[in-house]
Amino acid sequence: MRRPTIVDIAKAAGVSKGAVSYALNGRPGVSEETRRRILAIASDMGWAPSSPARALSPGGRIGAIGLVVDRPAHSLGLEPFFMQLVSGIETELASSNNDLLLQVTEDMGAETAAYRRWSAERRVDGVIMVDLRVDDPRIGLVEGLPLPAVVLGGPEGAGSLPCLYTDDSVAMREVVHYLAALGHRRIVRVAGPEEFVHTRARTAAFLDAAEQAGLAEAYSVHADYTGEAGTRTTRRLLARTDRPTALVYDNDLMAVAGLGVAREMGVGVPSQLSIVAWDDSVLCRLVRPSLTAIARDIVSYGRLAAAMLGDAIEGRPVRNQETSRGELYPRASTGPMGA
Amino acid sequence: MRRPTIVDIAKAAGVSKGAVSYALNGRPGVSEETRRRILAIASDMGWAPSSPARALSPGGRIGAIGLVVDRPAHSLGLEPFFMQLVSGIETELASSNNDLLLQVTEDMGAETAAYRRWSAERRVDGVIMVDLRVDDPRIGLVEGLPLPAVVLGGPEGAGSLPCLYTDDSVAMREVVHYLAALGHRRIVRVAGPEEFVHTRARTAAFLDAAEQAGLAEAYSVHADYTGEAGTRTTRRLLARTDRPTALVYDNDLMAVAGLGVAREMGVGVPSQLSIVAWDDSVLCRLVRPSLTAIARDIVSYGRLAAAMLGDAIEGRPVRNQETSRGELYPRASTGPMGA
Repeated sequence: MRRPTIVDIAKAAGVSKGAVSYALNGRPGVSEETRRRILAIASDMGWAPSSPARALSPGGRIGAIGLVVDRPAHSLGLEPFFMQLVSGIETELASSNNDLLLQVTEDMGAETAAYRRWSAERRVDGVIMVDLRVDDPRIGLVEGLPLPAVVLGGPEGAGSLPCLYTDDSVAMREVVHYLAALGHRRIVRVAGPEEFVHTRARTAAFLDAAEQAGLAEAYSVHADYTGEAGTRTTRRLLARTDRPTALVYDNDLMAVAGLGVAREMGVGVPSQLSIVAWDDSVLCRLVRPSLTAIARDIVSYGRLAAAMLGDAIEGRPVRNQETSRGELYPRASTGPMGA
Repeated sequence: MRRPTIVDIAKAAGVSKGAVSYALNGRPGVSEETRRRILAIASDMGWAPSSPARALSPGGRIGAIGLVVDRPAHSLGLEPFFMQLVSGIETELASSNNDLLLQVTEDMGAETAAYRRWSAERRVDGVIMVDLRVDDPRIGLVEGLPLPAVVLGGPEGAGSLPCLYTDDSVAMREVVHYLAALGHRRIVRVAGPEEFVHTRARTAAFLDAAEQAGLAEAYSVHADYTGEAGTRTTRRLLARTDRPTALVYDNDLMAVAGLGVAREMGVGVPSQLSIVAWDDSVLCRLVRPSLTAIARDIVSYGRLAAAMLGDAIEGRPVRNQETSRGELYPRASTGPMGA
């Protein structure tokens, strides 16, 4: 099988090659009735405007956007966040027949190489960038490329690029005050990588809220979102003589790992240890006890990011936007000590 | 910022526009030394052959392949299988600067529409198709399109398309004989959707192995891979007066859901119920008790599929291939009754 050519379409429609060319390219030379008939026949034969040809026309678009996810494959498989984000992005793209190029890399060098290549080879019309870092080298790079971009995170650190961010401080305050109200004093947060802007923002909000609540013993430790790191870190924390009575995890996977460690070490949840996960996912609802979690609408987050990028690609002004804040869903993994 | 033009490159190199055009298009008209100098300057300025232009040259390739995943977004987020598959595919694509177009849909109509559109608009050079169904309407459709494809699954039902498949019967026999050796008689399998070819193959292998082992009470029930379905199905099975003493799940997510239900209903694992998951994932290792599972090398599976598709795109002969079989990893969720 091959794509139908102008000759094939002309033969099927019983007209000249020239007439088919006029009809497909929207140029004068055939009657409106003939044009419609030719287009209908061409479409029945599986013809459509070729994406490369369209891209090369003046002001033409590629019709694709790019997303690079910089995580080890075995960890990524378990982060519901990314597939929900992709699903939201695609909901928005579907309405305009745009496609998503996804690249999974294991280091930032490969990520910046992808942006350079996609821009130089005109593979995509723009990109959505995730996991904004402190002094992120990607920002300056992408600012210098002819590549429209939207950053998830910020607004600090996103440079001149439009960004879509969440203010986690309200939800963080809610978590800390809720745990304090349950009587917890030694609350430890198992955070994501320290170099991520959103990790730092949460860390600052956590310390603020702990101070407000008069918790002198609250602190954060950093891990890399993987289940292995969640396991190791929790084991170390629960082995301390002044072990925490509540743990707040920066993703669902580390929280599930923490729950497993608590069971392995004979620490009752929630009677001796309360656990909170952030973000919520199916996983938090499936394990027993089910995990108290902060939920956000990640599908909408993806949809909005794709819409902003669409505007940026069309050269329309794009303003930074804040997404809806997370909300606390108390489940069985939190309670007063001894309950 | 914009892409450098021929004028920009000519100015930077101090040569004529014509000389730049000769150099970039590999045509005679400039000396080899000048060509090299112009190409180096162009490359420093971020120039690369445009992908749309390359695609339109005779025999030109798009440089991208497509993958459609037909699952609800909230379930997909938790299936490590797909992200591992994607990671394997991209390992292979990276060596040739090819990209992956990923589409997540919630029905097969959207999936077939994607294949038609990608082919008609020349968005991809070929596709990898997953979740082969019985009497799969996608096979005839794709056979009729100018769109090279590789099917994961088969070989029955893959039509004339090359396929990459696993023989699950050996691993299934191992699971059933292992459980029988532990003393289990009432073994029930919580299977994936009945319309998938690989589900049917596993069902047949399960019944064969059960018959060999003399287990008259073994049977399969079908669910849709989601945690919710795993929860519902397990609750129903454990509420029976002749409740099973061992459950074999067709994915990790349903197995974790089943473990949660066992705890909720006060059924000890493994003392009163053994649980086996297929495929293995980080999730199986994080929960407590950790889940006995069948592990396959899914990253290699993706890499091999992409390599086969590369051959198909280049018009080289492609033979059906069988991938490595799954292996049983016994963990804490299986044991003799009462242990």
